Amino acid sequence: MTLHPTVGNAPDGTVLTSAPQDRPVDRATAAARRVVDALLRTDRTNANLQRVAEELDNIAEHLEEHSPEIAERLIDMWHGEGVTRHDPVTGPENAIAPPLTLAGREDGSVEGEVTLTFPYQGPPGHLHGGVAAMLLDHTLGVANAWAGRSGATAQLNVRYHRPTPLFEPLTVSGRMVAEEGIKINTVGDIRTADGTVCVSVEALFIDKTVPRPR
Amino acid sequence: MTLHPTVGNAPDGTVLTSAPQDRPVDRATAAARRVVDALLRTDRTNANLQRVAEELDNIAEHLEEHSPEIAERLIDMWHGEGVTRHDPVTGPENAIAPPLTLAGREDGSVEGEVTLTFPYQGPPGHLHGGVAAMLLDHTLGVANAWAGRSGATAQLNVRYHRPTPLFEPLTVSGRMVAEEGIKINTVGDIRTADGTVCVSVEALFIDKTVPRPR
Repeated sequence: MTLHPTVGNAPDGTVLTSAPQDRPVDRATAAARRVVDALLRTDRTNANLQRVAEELDNIAEHLEEHSPEIAERLIDMWHGEGVTRHDPVTGPENAIAPPLTLAGREDGSVEGEVTLTFPYQGPPGHLHGGVAAMLLDHTLGVANAWAGRSGATAQLNVRYHRPTPLFEPLTVSGRMVAEEGIKINTVGDIRTADGTVCVSVEALFIDKTVPRPR
Repeated sequence: MTLHPTVGNAPDGTVLTSAPQDRPVDRATAAARRVVDALLRTDRTNANLQRVAEELDNIAEHLEEHSPEIAERLIDMWHGEGVTRHDPVTGPENAIAPPLTLAGREDGSVEGEVTLTFPYQGPPGHLHGGVAAMLLDHTLGVANAWAGRSGATAQLNVRYHRPTPLFEPLTVSGRMVAEEGIKINTVGDIRTADGTVCVSVEALFIDKTVPRPR
């Protein structure tokens, strides 16, 4: 059984998410992510989108022909003790994920830098508030793991201080701040490169794991 | 100028989001969405993913060659008064969006049904809590518009009551419940087909539009 890295047993800068690797599924997913982005950017009239639709449908059909049943795929997907590769925030196998890579810091926080583009847009040129909530929810879960805890989100309270820009680097961070029995309190935020906080979050997680006898 | 439909001027069941149409960009985006899903389902070993990666990269390159500058595309994207076609929740031109279609109800609420699959997974077989927050944030914005208001999300407070299942129909709904000057309070939830509430939300929106003189 793999020991999950925590602030107590791993060095500053330990990568806590599954970084993209040079393997076919990661390359195909990265290419799909590029298609998702380019579809929002391309010329609606002159990019021969009817032909693109046919080509993408052919690829989807090929992939579906090689897909096991959902129940079987679920077992395979959750096999092992490692970090997930398929989640919608950090997953290199999920084309919806930016993906965000998070590292653990000696001070107990986790953080990662990400630049977001059109697929994540809310107001013109700015991040969708719901996407900000999604990035933060996931980041707090990773922060709990870095603190040696785990739990399901019970309450997620997001505050929007100012619009968050697309097309420039953002830092997403989180840190567990308190724990009492099964209750875990974790905070986080999204900042621009100059340190301006655009979105902050406070959350309550409930650890439903039965504590081991000791 | 298009008059936005509201509970005061439009019939029960009015579709408030941009439904997918039979045009090339919508067909290409639907096919890309299918690829995103199938990439999470397909056999990692036998689906010739190296070849798939090359084909997807070729498509992305073609689309990028036909892409205008970001500033130009932004202007085009936000032209007109209609509902958005590119947002990550309801947008038929965004492969990240499920997409969710929302209709306005006579009682002032908005709602839509959606079945979510692997790209939106958090815990095994269940919806990612951050995706739930994203769906609800967007739905509340549409609920505000149906009530004749608009505003930016200032606070989004999400409560997770139980895990939300994937692969079965969910109802996402929202309703503006109070307004006082520029402050707008809106609530919503995600339920399974039998009416069980999995996630609920309360949010504060701030209407920064300068009121018209009257």
